[in-house]
Amino acid sequence: MNSLSEIADIIKANHSFGVTYHVSPDGDACGSVMALVQGLRKLGKEAYIISRDLTPDNLGFLPLSMEIAGHNTKPKNNSDILIALDCGNEERLSCDISDFTGMIINVDHHITNDMYGRFNYVDSSSSATSEIIYSLLNELDIELDTSIAKCLYTGILTDTGSFRHSNTTSSTHRVVSNLLNYNINHTKIHSALFDNKPFSKLKLIGRVLDDCKLLFNGKLILLYVTKQMLNELNIDNMDTGDLVSYGLQVENTEVSVLLKETDCGVKVSLRSKNEFDVRNIAEKFGGGGHIKASGITFNDCTLSEVKDKILNEFAKELD
Amino acid sequence: MNSLSEIADIIKANHSFGVTYHVSPDGDACGSVMALVQGLRKLGKEAYIISRDLTPDNLGFLPLSMEIAGHNTKPKNNSDILIALDCGNEERLSCDISDFTGMIINVDHHITNDMYGRFNYVDSSSSATSEIIYSLLNELDIELDTSIAKCLYTGILTDTGSFRHSNTTSSTHRVVSNLLNYNINHTKIHSALFDNKPFSKLKLIGRVLDDCKLLFNGKLILLYVTKQMLNELNIDNMDTGDLVSYGLQVENTEVSVLLKETDCGVKVSLRSKNEFDVRNIAEKFGGGGHIKASGITFNDCTLSEVKDKILNEFAKELD
Repeated sequence: MNSLSEIADIIKANHSFGVTYHVSPDGDACGSVMALVQGLRKLGKEAYIISRDLTPDNLGFLPLSMEIAGHNTKPKNNSDILIALDCGNEERLSCDISDFTGMIINVDHHITNDMYGRFNYVDSSSSATSEIIYSLLNELDIELDTSIAKCLYTGILTDTGSFRHSNTTSSTHRVVSNLLNYNINHTKIHSALFDNKPFSKLKLIGRVLDDCKLLFNGKLILLYVTKQMLNELNIDNMDTGDLVSYGLQVENTEVSVLLKETDCGVKVSLRSKNEFDVRNIAEKFGGGGHIKASGITFNDCTLSEVKDKILNEFAKELD
Repeated sequence: MNSLSEIADIIKANHSFGVTYHVSPDGDACGSVMALVQGLRKLGKEAYIISRDLTPDNLGFLPLSMEIAGHNTKPKNNSDILIALDCGNEERLSCDISDFTGMIINVDHHITNDMYGRFNYVDSSSSATSEIIYSLLNELDIELDTSIAKCLYTGILTDTGSFRHSNTTSSTHRVVSNLLNYNINHTKIHSALFDNKPFSKLKLIGRVLDDCKLLFNGKLILLYVTKQMLNELNIDNMDTGDLVSYGLQVENTEVSVLLKETDCGVKVSLRSKNEFDVRNIAEKFGGGGHIKASGITFNDCTLSEVKDKILNEFAKELD
């Protein structure tokens, strides 16, 4: 691995940069890329965003969101440097590198990173790639401004779940303390990120919570999203994975399970509040993830079949 | 008003302290009082908590919660100093001062404070009284520890709404950055504060959201809590005021209105996302509050009557 000052030296010595992130970019991917691109331009470099994706709706408030249109999918020239942010491996890049022979700089905070760059800086102790970019901009002697601070704040806010997750450190808050000196309206950023549900999503949350079940002496909450609910609310295509987290808001629960009926079967999301290892359950059905957040896809099964299978496994550990 | 170092000097020069807060104490009241009491004890002072209230359920994890039992309702001696934290006026003190002739030190962050102490330090630029107590402990050269840091973090977290509200400043994050150096489990604190709903509350949220209405071209969300819902869910006595905030999570809404049927009439909670002044509406019906958060109580009215009255007023501004 390289040091951040080595990464800074390579950047100083070159002129043109394509900057990309992982597919389906989130707040940290967009925030870190936009902050770096703005910083590079302040240094007089040519810098452009490479993205197969459009800006997600809730990130449209970010300053360079108009530059993400899904058109720039490749580095412009093989002499350019490709900087990949927040992306653990080549396969997930939102960038076509099939005929790229130039140099890749890989900067990330994920613990699993393939080190696919010619230069690599991966710091899993950072809460977000945006926290690393804050340090990189310092290393490059680039003065921050409101627009850059807004991007970095958004990235950190997204990946720390509003400073809640265990990746939030003393250093994270120190960085944010500095960002708030650049006159950003952090309340509006929270609102843009978190208060932008379609009304139908609020109704769906209502329906799902109204129907949820408390099982195993209160240790497990079971939530359903059925095709009928989606039809009745005219919901065609919506991310509903976050609904599972409502189950964890209940006192004394350990696990929340969301079953979602899809056209091909059932998608299961599992979340754990504390020590319970839901990945262990997911892996028994060919799923995977993390200890506290895992998922499984069942093809050609009904909701009721999947419910029985899953609950049987949980019964062994919770009953 | 006095300076923080004058307050520190008075504390250094005295020995015995009763420390109290406002009635119905929240995370900042409890956190700041417990942090200061622990700090005073580290200085070798006698310090005790005065409270008419019990520790709220969700704050039971705080280190001195067992010392809040509702028994100590007065200063022990008139020679003791009474330190009142996070309380804007004498009437709201969780302490009986009717026959107290000793000295009161009043430390608070609310913009409206009656300066009722012999010594007063009120800093409305602080996010929380806990943020002030952090500075006071520094001023007193008291070394923090995990237990004190936990209390101060809890106070700041509560009053900033997880670092979201506009009272959160660069200085707030700098303080929190320092607190996280004392080995506190901030994720568990978030969980204790926010993930402790009774299951029936989750069901009620479901019922309320399932029934909510979008009005005035999506600018207003109307939510109801009816006596029938509460009966069906066996909910006897539960704070439901927070339900109104769900309405603000919807994209493009400006106002959320919650009508709650009570034994004597209807309680109305009003919330605004951005600039809309809901206090203005509340005051027309004898209610009050802040621009973004107000309330009204209607006696001897039905839900449907109150709905009509309120919506008529909103129609003038939103239609």
